[in-house]
Amino acid sequence: MSVLTIREAQADDLEAIIRLHEEDEMGQHGDAWLPETKPAYEAAFAAIRRSPENRLFVAVDGSEIVGTFQLTFIPNLTGRGALRVKVESVKVKAARRSAGIGARMMAFAEEHARAQGARAMELTSNKVRKDAHRFYERLGFSRSHEGFKKKL
Amino acid sequence: MSVLTIREAQADDLEAIIRLHEEDEMGQHGDAWLPETKPAYEAAFAAIRRSPENRLFVAVDGSEIVGTFQLTFIPNLTGRGALRVKVESVKVKAARRSAGIGARMMAFAEEHARAQGARAMELTSNKVRKDAHRFYERLGFSRSHEGFKKKL
Repeated sequence: MSVLTIREAQADDLEAIIRLHEEDEMGQHGDAWLPETKPAYEAAFAAIRRSPENRLFVAVDGSEIVGTFQLTFIPNLTGRGALRVKVESVKVKAARRSAGIGARMMAFAEEHARAQGARAMELTSNKVRKDAHRFYERLGFSRSHEGFKKKL
Repeated sequence: MSVLTIREAQADDLEAIIRLHEEDEMGQHGDAWLPETKPAYEAAFAAIRRSPENRLFVAVDGSEIVGTFQLTFIPNLTGRGALRVKVESVKVKAARRSAGIGARMMAFAEEHARAQGARAMELTSNKVRKDAHRFYERLGFSRSHEGFKKKL
């Protein structure tokens, strides 16, 4: 853990990032790194990199990618024009969970958000992820909202 | 209702949009159109207009602005790189509620999201807004997530 670094994701990291998504069975998003899915991931990665308001990060221990998350900066009128940051797709490698990596990533996210002038952070977490809910509440998040999703 | 139109917000609409936010007591965001708050709203409006991934809309009946909402397009790896759209700051003028304006705005949002290639929509709603929750469920949204917020 002492050598854990958090940095912006590079194109070479993409397979390792998707491997973290593969381990997520609760989310049921069907993520898998396959010849037929690779182009869609590459296109999404390029879109994130092009976006001035999105940044994708990885947590790296030595040369191993052990975590990832995405920040989306959302300019908004609500709250007297308060810039907000949405945290997306938070994943920690299954074999490395409960070792503080998630907390390190969230601390980094909060520091980065503050440095960019954001006044609020937000995220949604599937109702089945009870451990995650306790984790976010320990970090000072308030479970104040219902999160609605609709597939198109 | 027959003349309700939905269009992208212009700078001239800003005061009327913030007046809709003022009517929102449940959210407790402290929104008010005042000499001292106007510059922050103007800056946030400009940031939304500059952003390639954010669009702010108004619903107009004749010359009266009766509703507003914001769409944020989020490029994302999760779900095999599915583009998602977050709906933000949905407001309908208090005197005009329960008349189908919200449903018209959400139908417009969904159509616009599909046209841009989005494969999922999402939003959060304060847990106290019970009527809103029923409204979103009627529109086919699933209340699958907990929504967490943290002020910075």
